[in-house]
Amino acid sequence: MIRVGIVGISGYSGVTTLELLLKHPGVRVTYVSAETTTGKVSEIWPHLNTKTDLVCHKFKIDEAITKADLFFLAVPHTVAMKIAPKLLAAKKKVIDLSADYRLKKGADYKKWYNVEHTDTSHLTTAVYGLPEIYREKIKKAQLVANPGCYPTAALLALAPLVSTQTEDIQSIIIDAKSGVTGAGRKVTLGFMFAAVSENFKAYKVLNHQHTPEINQYLSAMANKNWEVTFIPHLLPINRGILETIYVSLKKELLISTLHKFYTRFYKTEQFIRILPVGQQPEIKNVTGTNYCDIALAVDKRMLVITAAIDNLLKGAAGQAVQNMNIMCGFKEEEALL
Amino acid sequence: MIRVGIVGISGYSGVTTLELLLKHPGVRVTYVSAETTTGKVSEIWPHLNTKTDLVCHKFKIDEAITKADLFFLAVPHTVAMKIAPKLLAAKKKVIDLSADYRLKKGADYKKWYNVEHTDTSHLTTAVYGLPEIYREKIKKAQLVANPGCYPTAALLALAPLVSTQTEDIQSIIIDAKSGVTGAGRKVTLGFMFAAVSENFKAYKVLNHQHTPEINQYLSAMANKNWEVTFIPHLLPINRGILETIYVSLKKELLISTLHKFYTRFYKTEQFIRILPVGQQPEIKNVTGTNYCDIALAVDKRMLVITAAIDNLLKGAAGQAVQNMNIMCGFKEEEALL
Amino acid sequence: MIRVGIVGISGYSGVTTLELLLKHPGVRVTYVSAETTTGKVSEIWPHLNTKTDLVCHKFKIDEAITKADLFFLAVPHTVAMKIAPKLLAAKKKVIDLSADYRLKKGADYKKWYNVEHTDTSHLTTAVYGLPEIYREKIKKAQLVANPGCYPTAALLALAPLVSTQTEDIQSIIIDAKSGVTGAGRKVTLGFMFAAVSENFKAYKVLNHQHTPEINQYLSAMANKNWEVTFIPHLLPINRGILETIYVSLKKELLISTLHKFYTRFYKTEQFIRILPVGQQPEIKNVTGTNYCDIALAVDKRMLVITAAIDNLLKGAAGQAVQNMNIMCGFKEEEALL
Amino acid sequence: MIRVGIVGISGYSGVTTLELLLKHPGVRVTYVSAETTTGKVSEIWPHLNTKTDLVCHKFKIDEAITKADLFFLAVPHTVAMKIAPKLLAAKKKVIDLSADYRLKKGADYKKWYNVEHTDTSHLTTAVYGLPEIYREKIKKAQLVANPGCYPTAALLALAPLVSTQTEDIQSIIIDAKSGVTGAGRKVTLGFMFAAVSENFKAYKVLNHQHTPEINQYLSAMANKNWEVTFIPHLLPINRGILETIYVSLKKELLISTLHKFYTRFYKTEQFIRILPVGQQPEIKNVTGTNYCDIALAVDKRMLVITAAIDNLLKGAAGQAVQNMNIMCGFKEEEALL
Repeated sequence: MIRVGIVGISGYSGVTTLELLLKHPGVRVTYVSAETTTGKVSEIWPHLNTKTDLVCHKFKIDEAITKADLFFLAVPHTVAMKIAPKLLAAKKKVIDLSADYRLKKGADYKKWYNVEHTDTSHLTTAVYGLPEIYREKIKKAQLVANPGCYPTAALLALAPLVSTQTEDIQSIIIDAKSGVTGAGRKVTLGFMFAAVSENFKAYKVLNHQHTPEINQYLSAMANKNWEVTFIPHLLPINRGILETIYVSLKKELLISTLHKFYTRFYKTEQFIRILPVGQQPEIKNVTGTNYCDIALAVDKRMLVITAAIDNLLKGAAGQAVQNMNIMCGFKEEEALL
Repeated sequence: MIRVGIVGISGYSGVTTLELLLKHPGVRVTYVSAETTTGKVSEIWPHLNTKTDLVCHKFKIDEAITKADLFFLAVPHTVAMKIAPKLLAAKKKVIDLSADYRLKKGADYKKWYNVEHTDTSHLTTAVYGLPEIYREKIKKAQLVANPGCYPTAALLALAPLVSTQTEDIQSIIIDAKSGVTGAGRKVTLGFMFAAVSENFKAYKVLNHQHTPEINQYLSAMANKNWEVTFIPHLLPINRGILETIYVSLKKELLISTLHKFYTRFYKTEQFIRILPVGQQPEIKNVTGTNYCDIALAVDKRMLVITAAIDNLLKGAAGQAVQNMNIMCGFKEEEALL
Repeated sequence: MIRVGIVGISGYSGVTTLELLLKHPGVRVTYVSAETTTGKVSEIWPHLNTKTDLVCHKFKIDEAITKADLFFLAVPHTVAMKIAPKLLAAKKKVIDLSADYRLKKGADYKKWYNVEHTDTSHLTTAVYGLPEIYREKIKKAQLVANPGCYPTAALLALAPLVSTQTEDIQSIIIDAKSGVTGAGRKVTLGFMFAAVSENFKAYKVLNHQHTPEINQYLSAMANKNWEVTFIPHLLPINRGILETIYVSLKKELLISTLHKFYTRFYKTEQFIRILPVGQQPEIKNVTGTNYCDIALAVDKRMLVITAAIDNLLKGAAGQAVQNMNIMCGFKEEEALL
Repeated sequence: MIRVGIVGISGYSGVTTLELLLKHPGVRVTYVSAETTTGKVSEIWPHLNTKTDLVCHKFKIDEAITKADLFFLAVPHTVAMKIAPKLLAAKKKVIDLSADYRLKKGADYKKWYNVEHTDTSHLTTAVYGLPEIYREKIKKAQLVANPGCYPTAALLALAPLVSTQTEDIQSIIIDAKSGVTGAGRKVTLGFMFAAVSENFKAYKVLNHQHTPEINQYLSAMANKNWEVTFIPHLLPINRGILETIYVSLKKELLISTLHKFYTRFYKTEQFIRILPVGQQPEIKNVTGTNYCDIALAVDKRMLVITAAIDNLLKGAAGQAVQNMNIMCGFKEEEALL
């Protein structure tokens, strides 16, 4: 029985991690904390009433260290890089759901997050927690950087192509649409019901901070520098991401060949579903699950890949627990089906 | 006082046309019909209770001809091409909100709508009702083909660029998102509340029938053959379209130059709002209006144009009334502000 | 041409009042203010882009007095009672959309709003702005207290019965449901999209501040003390109120008699629609309108009255403009159809 | 390992039952059928893609009997009473999610469902599947009538009071609000996204078929004839019911006494949560769970009970599986937490 701590229980990915772990036979959540909200978890999150007796405290590193052996950091960026080094020094395993350890270069972090990175030493040792691509490294990792929600869908949708046929690709455009929980539990005018419902818009056009994360891992897979065009939009729904990815090809590729290749690439992956040709992913089909649904369509030299995930599960907490399962030797799907 | 008939009052664009005309000082709606639903309009559409005494009958051409001088055809495609020739022969003016007179070639119609066109003689005389581009022709038209909702936003967003700098453009991708009323008032599983809410998906991927309409008019504006990539998606909202248009450029263009050019291009157009650089259109800002909001963003050789309209107004009934105003010599904005 | 000022343009009822007045041929909006937000109205509310050049300033009483002759106070309660006396002293007409002048007794105000009333002298002279009941008084009023959204629907639904047959009534229960804009434009966790969508709940159970307002005017109409049970609920929609009112009767009444009586009672009222027996009001049918739709159903000694309004129109700004029309001698429906 | 059949897999309660059973360690789903839709379940319900290999056939009684030992009938009313007798004759256990075996008298069934009951002999032997009240009978039942969604919330909310203090109650009014899945998967104009979203209305006012079901079991609990007033409304959400229940009391009761009593009454019930005084149930807190959340509030002689459930779980499939667990000797909460 592994003792697990969740830092940041008042946010969506923190509480979703807790929900999953409450069903996990191999772990016990022994520590939860938050920055400002404290008290019984079942009062912070009334839907968990009677399901847990956990009490949430303000985070204190010494207390945390005595209470658990593996930590999920479900905190805003810049907070994780203050906590993680201390937990790592105390021999704890750490899965960071924030953006702090995803980019490999401190300079990139500074450019996109507007703040100096204060723990660059762990940037290189951190393993990017995309199990379908980096499973072997995750097994041995002490620090896992859990991928962003947009990059998860984008990288899973592009990995087969980019890692084997990168020379056939002219350009990549990712038109992404996400539900409101993707932005965390911000209390701002822009996320009020009256601002979101019956509405739709693009935001952070051409300068969203997930762009360098996508570029970095695509480039690593391709062994070639990739720069994608990435535009996110806000959907009037709670959970879910759909990305429509436009890949301009240098030559025509057959849909049947591509579909066969994708199916084979993910053959043993239980959380990736390559849809039959002609079907399209829908957010509803992945909501509440850890699946990533992917479809392909081709017209001459334009390949359109569509991918859907639940941003709080495969895009955050679900993938985090999947990473924990790999790091700790549990069945990879434990608590996730 | 012009006597107006609306054929197809039981659908969204028909009733929205009626709502607008009830506020129009220069016309009187003297005839309304529908295919299956008949009876008092205020019973078919309870929100119009006390606002109109009109009674809806099954369409009969002879009755229609005696009752009104100008007709809006808010009917499914294939129906308009049966009615329009008779109304035109009787010297009536016709604004067709269906797809029947938008494509110039019968062969294209057959390819995309899977049915033989039975009134090809009027395909060439019909004027495409996009006032900002074809105002002078609309003034003299007897038959106006009211543009599709997706093409309206796409063409308005691209017209300035394509009509003057088409040689700088490498390729055009249109990622479009629409509320449910864009599909008309279909009673099918796919448009049930439980199927649409908390959901999002692409549909008719790479084969939507608005593609050739966009291509035809872009090509006409550009004096060059254009083929865009067009993918529509279904938003969980009632009204509104947002299109994110990716224009690959052959050379870098400055955002300031482009913005100035767009602003000047639409300077005298009261229904086009070019947003300040840095702002993005939102569907909420155009819902219930005849506006098309357009924004531009550039990163190196990628130009991203975003455009929003209300699919039932600028994308259908509003534009139809705008066309009527032009054809009949009313103020172009009458009943539309 | 009457010069009108709107105090509180950054809230929903303020901006909705402005939208209506922009279409009103008899008035010109010459002054708008807000407490914290300032600048061009078209930047505060981008959907009004190109529709108005008004600039919003911080409220200053001296400036306000020189700029306009009639004022809408669309401010939080407690703010209106500080401003109104000064405007009244300067001979201005005032329509207060806040709660400050609705209750006749300062003690009631203190009990329900937890603050001392500082302008009790005008409590007695203020006229309650429910035109269907108090039209004659409104004509001569200098200060109108615009009714609350819940009381508007409740009082219109109950007025015919209570004012003529109060002795047949045993008890009244009002189960009310409102969209989010009823609470104003509060930026709180409870009104976030993720908190409201796919959710529903009762709030302020048995202690909502609209209860005494309903009781006071029902009692006045009945010439008898009435205390209703009132429970509001939050609907996952933007606009609209539906109230289901349970009237226990002391004796059986026929639905046909009641329906005839209600129809006659509101015969000349253009904003009240008594639905045919068997039909039910729907929020959609009144959204964007100044109507109040009312239906009746009876089973033995239980009378169920259902009423629907748009909380921002008949429940706030629409009714306020209706009051202005009456006070200034315009057609009562001007700008409201 | 018990072999289970689900008749009616194409509806919401059928597929939700399947989802639960796929997580149940003690049963195997060995048979699924539907009336018109056939083929792979993972094609009928794409969200179950890769989760099940089941194939759905048209229902045939002989095949069904050989394939499974316990059956869930998730079929429209009138269908269950044709199938159940044959399954019972073949010694199968049956849990009927339809309305066919809920009313004890054939005459009541005829009155409310407008059709003759053709299996009245089982009306008396069927056990009403409300575990918190009838657990002991359910243990021994061969045929369980799974309660309606509205009655489940109403009876759980009223059981403590009615079964012990019925003489203190003057009258009961139930104002109920439900999401769209409560009506099943009907493809009608009234359940289209455009008809439901941004809307709200009452329906079947004073004549909903769940009224006699509520009355029958309240009367049985009270040993006294009860007739409630019951009005359902349609919420623009997918799942969930909230009922606001107004109990007029003959004498004042203390909230503290009532709250203590309710808490004690349901002390050992793991699916009933009596909320602290001052808190209110929200649909969001029970969505996706088998909980019924209940709150109490009192003002003089008016007791207001609010109760929330997920209509597809505690209101249908969840309760059905809870009943199966009781009938088969599994842990009552198996597959339900």
